Amino acid sequence: MLALKQLKQIDATPSEPYETVPLELISEAQTKGYDSVCLPLTTEAWRKRWTEMCLMPSDSVHPENRSRESRRESRLLRRDSAVEKKAEAWRENPCFEWDEVTITRLDEAASITAIVSEWLELDAEDDGIRYDAEIALQQELAYASYLTIHTAILPAPRNRNHIASYARTVRACLQKAPFMSIAIRLPVYDTTSVTEPIVPVSPSSSSSSLQSSSTPSTPRLFVSNSTDSLAPLEAHIDAAWETWDLIRSICDYNIRLTLALDLTPPLPNSPGVLSKWAAEAVRYIFLPSTTFIANAKGYPVLPKPTQNFIRDSMTHRPNIIISGASSGLHMRGGEDAYSQYVRHLERTSSVVQAAETAGTVENFAQGYQDYLQAPLQPLMDNLQSITYQTFEQDPVKYRSYEEAIYKALQEWPYQDKIVICVAGAGRGPLVARSLSAVDRTKRRNVHIYAIEKNPNAFVTLQNRQRMEWKDRVRLIFGDMRSIVVAEKADILVSELLGSFGDNELSPECLDGAMRFLKPQGISIPSSYTAHLAPLSSSKLYNDARAITDEKSLETPYVVMFQAVNLLSGEGPGPSGLCGPQVQECWEFEHPRKNLVLNDQGLPPTNSHNARSAKLRFHIPHAGVLHGLAGYFEAVLYGNIGLSIHPHRKDQISKNMLSWFPLFFPFKEPLYLPSNCELQVSIWRLTNERQVWYEWHAESFLGSIGGTSTTSGGGQSLVSPTVGVPSPLIDAIDLVPRSSPLLRDGLERSTATLVKIGHTSLHNAGGRSNYIGL
Amino acid sequence: MLALKQLKQIDATPSEPYETVPLELISEAQTKGYDSVCLPLTTEAWRKRWTEMCLMPSDSVHPENRSRESRRESRLLRRDSAVEKKAEAWRENPCFEWDEVTITRLDEAASITAIVSEWLELDAEDDGIRYDAEIALQQELAYASYLTIHTAILPAPRNRNHIASYARTVRACLQKAPFMSIAIRLPVYDTTSVTEPIVPVSPSSSSSSLQSSSTPSTPRLFVSNSTDSLAPLEAHIDAAWETWDLIRSICDYNIRLTLALDLTPPLPNSPGVLSKWAAEAVRYIFLPSTTFIANAKGYPVLPKPTQNFIRDSMTHRPNIIISGASSGLHMRGGEDAYSQYVRHLERTSSVVQAAETAGTVENFAQGYQDYLQAPLQPLMDNLQSITYQTFEQDPVKYRSYEEAIYKALQEWPYQDKIVICVAGAGRGPLVARSLSAVDRTKRRNVHIYAIEKNPNAFVTLQNRQRMEWKDRVRLIFGDMRSIVVAEKADILVSELLGSFGDNELSPECLDGAMRFLKPQGISIPSSYTAHLAPLSSSKLYNDARAITDEKSLETPYVVMFQAVNLLSGEGPGPSGLCGPQVQECWEFEHPRKNLVLNDQGLPPTNSHNARSAKLRFHIPHAGVLHGLAGYFEAVLYGNIGLSIHPHRKDQISKNMLSWFPLFFPFKEPLYLPSNCELQVSIWRLTNERQVWYEWHAESFLGSIGGTSTTSGGGQSLVSPTVGVPSPLIDAIDLVPRSSPLLRDGLERSTATLVKIGHTSLHNAGGRSNYIGL
Repeated sequence: MLALKQLKQIDATPSEPYETVPLELISEAQTKGYDSVCLPLTTEAWRKRWTEMCLMPSDSVHPENRSRESRRESRLLRRDSAVEKKAEAWRENPCFEWDEVTITRLDEAASITAIVSEWLELDAEDDGIRYDAEIALQQELAYASYLTIHTAILPAPRNRNHIASYARTVRACLQKAPFMSIAIRLPVYDTTSVTEPIVPVSPSSSSSSLQSSSTPSTPRLFVSNSTDSLAPLEAHIDAAWETWDLIRSICDYNIRLTLALDLTPPLPNSPGVLSKWAAEAVRYIFLPSTTFIANAKGYPVLPKPTQNFIRDSMTHRPNIIISGASSGLHMRGGEDAYSQYVRHLERTSSVVQAAETAGTVENFAQGYQDYLQAPLQPLMDNLQSITYQTFEQDPVKYRSYEEAIYKALQEWPYQDKIVICVAGAGRGPLVARSLSAVDRTKRRNVHIYAIEKNPNAFVTLQNRQRMEWKDRVRLIFGDMRSIVVAEKADILVSELLGSFGDNELSPECLDGAMRFLKPQGISIPSSYTAHLAPLSSSKLYNDARAITDEKSLETPYVVMFQAVNLLSGEGPGPSGLCGPQVQECWEFEHPRKNLVLNDQGLPPTNSHNARSAKLRFHIPHAGVLHGLAGYFEAVLYGNIGLSIHPHRKDQISKNMLSWFPLFFPFKEPLYLPSNCELQVSIWRLTNERQVWYEWHAESFLGSIGGTSTTSGGGQSLVSPTVGVPSPLIDAIDLVPRSSPLLRDGLERSTATLVKIGHTSLHNAGGRSNYIGL
Repeated sequence: MLALKQLKQIDATPSEPYETVPLELISEAQTKGYDSVCLPLTTEAWRKRWTEMCLMPSDSVHPENRSRESRRESRLLRRDSAVEKKAEAWRENPCFEWDEVTITRLDEAASITAIVSEWLELDAEDDGIRYDAEIALQQELAYASYLTIHTAILPAPRNRNHIASYARTVRACLQKAPFMSIAIRLPVYDTTSVTEPIVPVSPSSSSSSLQSSSTPSTPRLFVSNSTDSLAPLEAHIDAAWETWDLIRSICDYNIRLTLALDLTPPLPNSPGVLSKWAAEAVRYIFLPSTTFIANAKGYPVLPKPTQNFIRDSMTHRPNIIISGASSGLHMRGGEDAYSQYVRHLERTSSVVQAAETAGTVENFAQGYQDYLQAPLQPLMDNLQSITYQTFEQDPVKYRSYEEAIYKALQEWPYQDKIVICVAGAGRGPLVARSLSAVDRTKRRNVHIYAIEKNPNAFVTLQNRQRMEWKDRVRLIFGDMRSIVVAEKADILVSELLGSFGDNELSPECLDGAMRFLKPQGISIPSSYTAHLAPLSSSKLYNDARAITDEKSLETPYVVMFQAVNLLSGEGPGPSGLCGPQVQECWEFEHPRKNLVLNDQGLPPTNSHNARSAKLRFHIPHAGVLHGLAGYFEAVLYGNIGLSIHPHRKDQISKNMLSWFPLFFPFKEPLYLPSNCELQVSIWRLTNERQVWYEWHAESFLGSIGGTSTTSGGGQSLVSPTVGVPSPLIDAIDLVPRSSPLLRDGLERSTATLVKIGHTSLHNAGGRSNYIGL
């Protein structure tokens, strides 16, 4: 947390024992619970000199003058040549006078976040003013850099017509100051309209404007008397985000470019539109004391939507900048009340609480949030004991397995002898669970086989057999696709699933294991499905492309998502055909029926395990697609399952730790406007040696005017799902997402879509999973 | 030109003296004026076997069955397991029988273009059929590859819902056959609709279907009984192009992927929508004999729009494939008439004719079409004599210069002594022109100075002075920004312009030369402007990114455009604010007024030469933005000018050879839907050592419903221009593109735009022009 302080004169007198006012401010803030201070870098003296040199009193008189050239000329014509000479001398050698900056010493600068001159118009209508503002900005950053200041906060963009120029300037600054971070101050929404460009601030525009500029937390330039107040707040938040997106895109997602989100404008109650900020590099949040309201006792608190937003933002652990705390705006609590309240919000954030609660995925995943991991390839690689140990810690997964085995045993009609085969026993957790399930049913004459191909894990199995299991378990060493098993199994238990279900080659392995399952035998799991949702995350995009491997953007990663945003909504979208937020791609069932088998009992080719899906997502709010989030759901037996599907995991297998989702990156970000449709194609492909995924996306908007017949009332309809309702969800009494409207949805599809973009195809050919025995 | 032939049975008997039927067909075609033969690769026997193995008679019965999984299962259920076993054996080892292919020998294959089995449904609704079709395609390409066939033509995509799958398959084939070119057959427009997927062709669907498939020039599957015949033809051509765009994008612009454009559907008369094909790799054009109509004498000729299209296509020199020439469809001329007619179109194509006419740019530029050249940097590099010689060949440029000098001399009011200074004299062409202008005016007492900084060219100048000019010319060696000139000039003549006007640093050099121009003196040129238009060209995009230099897509190139398409139209666009097809960015005027100068008479900084422009283009037809085309226009003196502006060059300086346009590439192609607006930002930037450009683009669509107030009748208005009308155009009596509607245009701007995409920023920082003295 930072305190935003003002310092108008460099030569003000500090209190004892401080040598300078900045040192006093820093020390004072720290005693009041702040980590540090945020300070404007320059004084009024600088503003005065720059304004005299670079702005003309009448610059804003004729904004309708469209000829750039003539305006430039007239500016020179009207101007005092002595002033212009001074300006040229400054442009040639940009340099501060001692009283134009607020800090001059390294010890002052050590913990400061600097605010660049608020009044610099980097996006002025006039070319010349923009050019001079850029020189001034470079000068300020160079000075901050000299003092080893790590982050400078830039004035908010004000003029939509020249955001590209603003962004280009930022890009140039990032290149010129290679160690400095630049944060863009941005009001969370912007109600200025395109048709009302901000009038350049001229020196004649009175002291009240100067006053307001020295209290930058007052949103003087941000909330204008907008004429389009009818447009919903959501559109304005989308517009603010669009400004940010353009700036960071032009800066090529530079990791030193961050966001200082200004929460001065009151927030709406709809979290949907605010969730987009979760995917962005929000390093700072501005909270002026004026955003606080008084509670019943007169203490400053924040309105509910702002509270929620701050709590949710704790995924980023942003620096909160509080300004005006000493202005005495609230009756009670004094200056400390603001920082204490924000600390309280932090402590009560669900993100922070989940991370601090033992047994949660969030707690388990500490340090792994948004961290890219290569998926395991247990078929190709033999896992290490430590890897087995990590996954064996999951209490939920193995409890569910035991329950499934128990139920299967109970319902299995054949009574004389039962053979359970654990295919891929690892270090034996499923063997142990099988034994305890058997014990619970009090069945006798149950033979348990444990198959394992990892020679190292097989040693552990032998040890457990010798010490624990004795003759209740028979061990078989080898690959389940080739070994010989003495008797056919009634129940085949395996745990070969990956984050996307089939991505660790469970279908291929179980094809081989089916040789020793009885024709009517049970496979646990009996089926699994893969699910996708479109995702935005500037961090994951940046991390994936930073991997120095030309295939880094062509392979999926295992990621514990945190600073991400799912772009899809639940609506039927412009075509009326869009499915839910997270959609099913395909399913695998075991045992498979009607498979052609060769003499060894194996399918001659793997073509039956190829899959493809084409999904349609509705994108309610503008965003940038960086990749796809992949999830799985498995039916172990009956209504017992495993799920990492974000909407269903808590009902099906809460606090299961074993799987983080999968992230399929796109090589180029795809900009998606509000209310568009995203069509995603994904393929599971295979040849004689490998299995891999390829994915692709296209975006569409509803057609404008003309031929389209938009269907009314689409929002009120239940959104059709792809595929059948989950048996797991039915079992725990959720309202099933039934698909009675699917045909109706098809018939309503009269709206024409206009294609607006696509990403190139991506494939993991370079990092396939190898089937080869 | 190729003849498309049929060969149903591999064991047909050839006529004497040919050993095989393919050899007979090739020889026969060559005697009839064809270069080669285009032949289907496979026979009916192959189709029969594949259909039996991979398609079910009832596969098309329940297309409404939406569950992929269950359909896959039911296909297996209904299927004879013996057939499925056969299919699996084939999938495991795809292999032809001898009678399933039309050619088997290297000598047969030597000059053949192969047509892959037309009936392969690479985009079938059913996953399994698609998968098997891909195996079959790979098998056919592998066989063609074995016979060293260089190009295979793939069946046209038929099902819009699965174009991505089709494209993914093509991509896989390109990767697997690293030496083969793949051409995608594509009807120039596609009237099939999304809601009517083509029913898979089943073996039971009678011999008539088999018959038609063996005459692939009949567009059986392409022109269906479409229900949306009300939509304009333009939309269908856009849709066909979109199909192609998706395929080549998914194939990452592979240079071995080309287009076989099928002109079977009748072409419209509007060339605008057809011009997009100019930017694509149209390697083949299908012309079935049925597209020909009979002329008055009964000879086969093509309808006018097709004639025009073929003539325009000669930029690509495509292979024309004529089918059915021997079917006797037309009364007169026999089989040879078709090939003779197409040769006639080729000869009478304006592209071919211009290239063959001496004195045209096209003739001069032979071999340089669409070839990327680094722009000259004459300030940094000293040019070679051969370079000077090439540019001195331009008759138009130097004639215009002489005329400008002549007029300036005539109109110059001071009569006693006139000083002409040629700044950057090179090998002396402007000195010679100055002398002959002086001679024409019969003026006396004219002093001519020639300044040159290239020490090598200065030797040539000394030689010419000694041999030709004697004491009429005084030579000064050195940089015009630093040398001392004895007397101030009345007329300063320079030729420092680049393709974009200021890109060879003419403004910076002339700033220095202004020291020795009299206050009221004349600069020839007196001004110049830079112009831009958005451009599509898959070749230029591919060539620019193929340059192994990380800055290759951040620098502009000099290019003689040919296979390109300007994407912009003249309309006011969705915002009502768009300018003309080619728009002015900025202007430089000489001498400059009101410039602050230092003691040396030079501007202290170069900031006055920074420029920026934001342009709005209307994009009437869908296309892909690959870069910007840059042009210049210069006023030498009065109404005498130089121009490479595509609409004005012929009026201002026809057949001028010295400048090809500039190409500013984008790093990533930007897809632009029909009727969108493209906003382009471009900056001319400078620091103390360098000058460079940066550019950026964003695309927008008109808002859908809701808040937008679309302005009616926009199309009928004269499009507003940016900047003032060209004085050059006024002089030669063109209707000026006046801008009386500009304010009106602004006021009509009530339509809201929806942003739909952007490209990242590009800058030539890595390849700047160096100012450094």
